[in-house]
Amino acid sequence: MTQASIITIGDELLIGQVIDTNSAYIAQKLNTEGIAVKRRIAVGDIKPDIVEALDTAAADTDIIIITGGLGPTADDITKPLLCEYFAGKMVEDKNVLVHIEQLFASIFNRPITDRNRLQAMVPDVCNVLHNKVGTAPGMLFKKGKKVFMSLPGVPHEMRYLVDAEVIPYVSKHYPGAVICHETLLTFGIGESNLADLLIEFEAALPLNIKLAYLPNYGLVRLRLSGMGTDRKQLESSLANTITELKKIVSKYLVTDKDDSMQVVLQKLLQSRNETVSTAESCTGGYIAHLLTSIPGSSSWYEGSVVSYSYSAKEDLLQVPKTMLLEHGAVSEEVVTKMAEGALKSIHATYTIAVSGIMGPGGGMPDKPVGTVWMAAGNRKKIITKKLQLRFDRKKNIEITAIHALNLLRLFIVEESKK
Amino acid sequence: MTQASIITIGDELLIGQVIDTNSAYIAQKLNTEGIAVKRRIAVGDIKPDIVEALDTAAADTDIIIITGGLGPTADDITKPLLCEYFAGKMVEDKNVLVHIEQLFASIFNRPITDRNRLQAMVPDVCNVLHNKVGTAPGMLFKKGKKVFMSLPGVPHEMRYLVDAEVIPYVSKHYPGAVICHETLLTFGIGESNLADLLIEFEAALPLNIKLAYLPNYGLVRLRLSGMGTDRKQLESSLANTITELKKIVSKYLVTDKDDSMQVVLQKLLQSRNETVSTAESCTGGYIAHLLTSIPGSSSWYEGSVVSYSYSAKEDLLQVPKTMLLEHGAVSEEVVTKMAEGALKSIHATYTIAVSGIMGPGGGMPDKPVGTVWMAAGNRKKIITKKLQLRFDRKKNIEITAIHALNLLRLFIVEESKK
Repeated sequence: MTQASIITIGDELLIGQVIDTNSAYIAQKLNTEGIAVKRRIAVGDIKPDIVEALDTAAADTDIIIITGGLGPTADDITKPLLCEYFAGKMVEDKNVLVHIEQLFASIFNRPITDRNRLQAMVPDVCNVLHNKVGTAPGMLFKKGKKVFMSLPGVPHEMRYLVDAEVIPYVSKHYPGAVICHETLLTFGIGESNLADLLIEFEAALPLNIKLAYLPNYGLVRLRLSGMGTDRKQLESSLANTITELKKIVSKYLVTDKDDSMQVVLQKLLQSRNETVSTAESCTGGYIAHLLTSIPGSSSWYEGSVVSYSYSAKEDLLQVPKTMLLEHGAVSEEVVTKMAEGALKSIHATYTIAVSGIMGPGGGMPDKPVGTVWMAAGNRKKIITKKLQLRFDRKKNIEITAIHALNLLRLFIVEESKK
Repeated sequence: MTQASIITIGDELLIGQVIDTNSAYIAQKLNTEGIAVKRRIAVGDIKPDIVEALDTAAADTDIIIITGGLGPTADDITKPLLCEYFAGKMVEDKNVLVHIEQLFASIFNRPITDRNRLQAMVPDVCNVLHNKVGTAPGMLFKKGKKVFMSLPGVPHEMRYLVDAEVIPYVSKHYPGAVICHETLLTFGIGESNLADLLIEFEAALPLNIKLAYLPNYGLVRLRLSGMGTDRKQLESSLANTITELKKIVSKYLVTDKDDSMQVVLQKLLQSRNETVSTAESCTGGYIAHLLTSIPGSSSWYEGSVVSYSYSAKEDLLQVPKTMLLEHGAVSEEVVTKMAEGALKSIHATYTIAVSGIMGPGGGMPDKPVGTVWMAAGNRKKIITKKLQLRFDRKKNIEITAIHALNLLRLFIVEESKK
């Protein structure tokens, strides 16, 4: 099986100012082509460290993808370094220059500088990978059977080049082993209880199929990865295995697709031609953001009221002031009233309402940080649920959102059984 | 200067199913202690690959931080591997067992299993790092002058152990060189134009101070990093340099703190004892989410209307249907009306309103994907701005949010000059 390394270059990665999202994207795409990523290395803008990473990667992998350090500023040293590493010299690439000039004239609407023109200089020993969406060209170098591809670190430029250049090249020159994944999403059971449930199942797995547990925000994703030579055979073997797995975890199963909780809800709503709204206090718009991040969400998502203050709860959701004063904003009464208010003021089939204390401040003796009330329902019925979380603000917000989406999912599933 | 390596372990990192946020956190914390991170390596749950990463890291760095692979399931192989690597044998740690039993009894509220009890087994050659917030203990191994610390991969457990165990240990045993950073945030100028503006400044920088450009979402963060032996001297030298830099980029300067755009706006509002609301269409709650992610935001953030549908714009923000039909939802008229509506229905000093087409669908000949109208203002005055973006949905949403926050920031700064 062909193996790859990913090298990311940039001081910002080593002082922790930037989170590396590029590697995950590249790894995912290579994996789909049957290429295994053996390692990822991140080094700073330091010549000997980059050279060491290149040597390490070249020692035992055939495909080396490099990102970062191609910008127009002085701290970007990757291009001259690669030129030297592959014993080339810098020459101007006419096509790249024309492309850069066009970008500045028609899209950036600002004058081009000499520094930008310099980005058209490339090593004469590389093949240029045309970066349609940016000024820094990608570069491909060959050394024996090994290929090195250098991409800019700007995420959308990197993604464009991976899709348009890297994957077509890899797929043509490195036909890989067949790799298939199947994924299940479970909710409401911890990783170790799930593992206990699956002891016999795991022990009986064929040698070429691996099971992985990926816990996240109260969800556990179960991934079966199979490797083989015959796609049809592998797919059928995986299909049998996943069917068996689904039976064992049926009580906790959210979906057998590699979908997020919000996409599961989207599909449910779309299949029923129904819509949803939200009334958020403690999640502060995060549930709305999760739903509207899905392309085309305007066809099934109506809108949200983020009622952060008491007066917003009164004015936008008709929660009575007396109720707020008597029970507090974080209470079953208020969250139910918020849901009713959202159903009145926004024309959607369903609604989700949440109110809680996300921390670090705001806790009270009878309602410590992490107390959350949530409601979900339609004009006929509203159900509620209480959570007691124990994480930091960010994670409390994220987990609350997933729980709330799941509450509505369960409501719809239950109602449709009647 | 003491150097460190970070090793992250897990197949999920190499197939791209998970983005590694742990490394950035660890790097940041080590850096603050004057420890340079030389490299980060990610490998799968594969014994020889993990051993190779350990050997590579131990060859030229003194502090090796390892995360991942400590969970209770069969794909977690780090603990037995480290036991073998350091020639130890597994023994039960009484304190860890008591802690795990307490967690299950008082917090998880579910029965403890044998698998969970197994997490109390540790190599007899390590010092246990007490994981107060989870069941997998951290481990510290020494080998000559080098130290290896193994932490769970679950982000909040990793963060807890870094703060409570790793950093205190490192700070005591590896007093580092003095490293200081100063950061400026600019908006409205591209990376290369900024670099042109700073040619002479960069050339005149002292040898121990480096300048880095970190572009993100229309913002460019400029970071000066200084290294030295005397903290006072270094701080004063950096202070002079940053003052000079601020003068050169003053036209584009958002802040001279290492703050995000939303925190800049928060500080501005809090210093004036004023509040803000939002009326979001295309950003779908993302601006509200950015603002409410800041702890204590309830004291200056009132709430938001996410008016995704026409009817939500009419019902919640009083945008007349005739205006929506005549000008379309993405227009200066509608976004101004949305801002006025939010100022009427939510009691805040200022408001921000946005409406646009984030893609991939929804584009029209006269309003292609990426067209955005935004408004910001108070009850006396509302200003507007149009954007034409060219990214994918996710990035369009993120950039729109940052532009909208900046529009209100500029509005407040301008008004306060009068």
